[in-house]
Amino acid sequence: MKNKLHFNATLNGKAKEVFASLQEEEKTIGYYALPEQDISAVTEYCKTISSEVETIAVIGIGGSSLGAKAVYEFLKPVESLSREVYFFESTDPINIKSLLAKIDVTKTHFLVISKSGTTVETFAIYKYILSLQSDATSYTFITDPGSALEKYAQDIHANVLHLPDNVGGRFSVLSVVGLVPLALCGIDIQALLNGANTIKKSFFEHGYLHDILLKKSLFYAKNHAQYHINCIFAYSESLKYFCEWYVQLWGESLGKKQRSSAFNVGLTPIGLIGPKDQHSFLQLIMEGTRDKSVTFIQVEDFEDEIKIPNTTLPHLESLDTLNNLAFSKLINMQCNSVIEALLEEENIPLDSIIIPKIDAQNIGSLIFYYELLTSLVGELIDINTYDQPGVEAAKIILKKKLTSI
Amino acid sequence: MKNKLHFNATLNGKAKEVFASLQEEEKTIGYYALPEQDISAVTEYCKTISSEVETIAVIGIGGSSLGAKAVYEFLKPVESLSREVYFFESTDPINIKSLLAKIDVTKTHFLVISKSGTTVETFAIYKYILSLQSDATSYTFITDPGSALEKYAQDIHANVLHLPDNVGGRFSVLSVVGLVPLALCGIDIQALLNGANTIKKSFFEHGYLHDILLKKSLFYAKNHAQYHINCIFAYSESLKYFCEWYVQLWGESLGKKQRSSAFNVGLTPIGLIGPKDQHSFLQLIMEGTRDKSVTFIQVEDFEDEIKIPNTTLPHLESLDTLNNLAFSKLINMQCNSVIEALLEEENIPLDSIIIPKIDAQNIGSLIFYYELLTSLVGELIDINTYDQPGVEAAKIILKKKLTSI
Repeated sequence: MKNKLHFNATLNGKAKEVFASLQEEEKTIGYYALPEQDISAVTEYCKTISSEVETIAVIGIGGSSLGAKAVYEFLKPVESLSREVYFFESTDPINIKSLLAKIDVTKTHFLVISKSGTTVETFAIYKYILSLQSDATSYTFITDPGSALEKYAQDIHANVLHLPDNVGGRFSVLSVVGLVPLALCGIDIQALLNGANTIKKSFFEHGYLHDILLKKSLFYAKNHAQYHINCIFAYSESLKYFCEWYVQLWGESLGKKQRSSAFNVGLTPIGLIGPKDQHSFLQLIMEGTRDKSVTFIQVEDFEDEIKIPNTTLPHLESLDTLNNLAFSKLINMQCNSVIEALLEEENIPLDSIIIPKIDAQNIGSLIFYYELLTSLVGELIDINTYDQPGVEAAKIILKKKLTSI
Repeated sequence: MKNKLHFNATLNGKAKEVFASLQEEEKTIGYYALPEQDISAVTEYCKTISSEVETIAVIGIGGSSLGAKAVYEFLKPVESLSREVYFFESTDPINIKSLLAKIDVTKTHFLVISKSGTTVETFAIYKYILSLQSDATSYTFITDPGSALEKYAQDIHANVLHLPDNVGGRFSVLSVVGLVPLALCGIDIQALLNGANTIKKSFFEHGYLHDILLKKSLFYAKNHAQYHINCIFAYSESLKYFCEWYVQLWGESLGKKQRSSAFNVGLTPIGLIGPKDQHSFLQLIMEGTRDKSVTFIQVEDFEDEIKIPNTTLPHLESLDTLNNLAFSKLINMQCNSVIEALLEEENIPLDSIIIPKIDAQNIGSLIFYYELLTSLVGELIDINTYDQPGVEAAKIILKKKLTSI
């Protein structure tokens, strides 16, 4: 993975300070350790799932589904996976029925994932599906150690796996939360972790990403009042759900009251896919308010050689310049054209990330890169990156509504 | 459709002025007339497509695909459609191949949609697909009258339909651009237009939406420097692609240099889906910078009665409050809980839209509501709502790159 910053960013005194803070965090915040974990327990567990199981269904929401979905949807179009994975992450009845129409519940293994063990959406869906498939061996529960859900699972003699309790939901994709569904459909989870570990080492052991991540986070933090919208512009349809994962990670981590001032601060994430969004959001980046940074993500080699044929269409000869061009080359030319056009403008901080190809290792790298960047920016803008107190109020109101029906 | 504003908005002298401007625009900007068009030509054309055609494929990008996709994906889960529709809207080779794997090109009718007639992405894909299916009767071309594409289509004796040239791409969903693919899969396009017309009449003929749309646009425009991020938070998975359509409409229309000052202004659209994004973006709305307005969209009746069964899970008895509740009721309770929680906060302008149910008429209403709102805000912040000069620079650079290969 390469990352080039197109804006002027320097390392100041705060760089050492924030690096030291992250080294300190590493001792208490669980996600840092995930790239180096031993996956043998996950692998062994996966062997216990019958080969007659054709489909995996994740029942989970937010941090319990977005990460696995990002990796799965990235790899599905290019890898021959052994099972399909579906994600039940909404209480929308139309959505639940559409998903159920796609699977055979008797050949599906359900992963019920809830860190707290009491997520309303997850249990509403679980109770419904339980009425269609009552066999406890069709379910595995993933939750915090000691949760009420764990006790329930033990009562019904179903499998339980633990999410380390110092790993927050939106940082949990490289824990059992993501690894189990991904391993069950045949994705190389060791490669995923290796990709993450490369980034971790490069940052903590002063490799090439050390300075880049510090410079980028210092710039984002210093200018957060001006550039408070941070766009990812990814030139690969397969990164669509990675963008959704990023939106949760960035938005829920960095939209907070400041620790020292209790002032509301926040960086707003936006996920864009090229070239499609050249015909949508690009106009706003080019001519709108100068409140946005943009990170382009490109795939160097799609490992696919489909080409535009050597065809001349009468009256449309001007389009012959496309002839014989590989689509993988065209899409990258489009991305580079947009980068060049934006570099002509002032006050649009850009950087570009290039991953060599679409595989498990590279998505692992992207994930850990963004997790580190989030931790760095959170520390620098003086907030608690790892909590989400703002979502409690609506939960309390819902609970009251439910008990007063 | 009901729309309730939860912020203080008043009608000032500008209201009459902007209403008069829109009445003036109606004479030259084509989209205003679309709800009242005669659809018999479209219906007749659709009858010419063989009943052996099982699949419709739209080859188009941006305004040529987002609108039809929004309507199709909204209705697909609840209506028995006669054909499936696929959208080729990317030069990503992995995406092109994945889509082609889903269709039988011999049983597919392709709609090649390009307003200008020379969109690079559309022709790259068209040339490729032409190499797989060379029969001209498998294609219909939709373009501006007199474009080079029209001449090409005539040369090969293929069908051509015209997009009225005073209808911009992102305002074209209710023209042939959207109507043809939607009619070909059996969607009731007259109902779609009727839904749009209801909104048009309510606004122009001083119905209940007249004041609401004026108040809302005046508030958005007056406070655009503070509340420059405008979120839709839709509690229906089926509105996911409506949100993507909204992002293009809002972002590409309202991110501009001001006419009088040449100053960069812009309103940033964000599409969210509940309850999923309660576990993602909500934290940022609740505790982040006060730069966001939020419009909740709810479906009053999902016309689906699946319920959470009356099941008690040992150790999880607190979740019994969910028992016997219909999912359609739960999802709306969740939405209302979030609205109530946000109303407790200061400086988060909210409004809520409720549509009675999921059908063609209601999505037509939503579309026209947002088109009118966009026109109003654009006029009030002193920009040209209908052009997109900012996307040209990248196109020119790409053209240079293509000719210098």
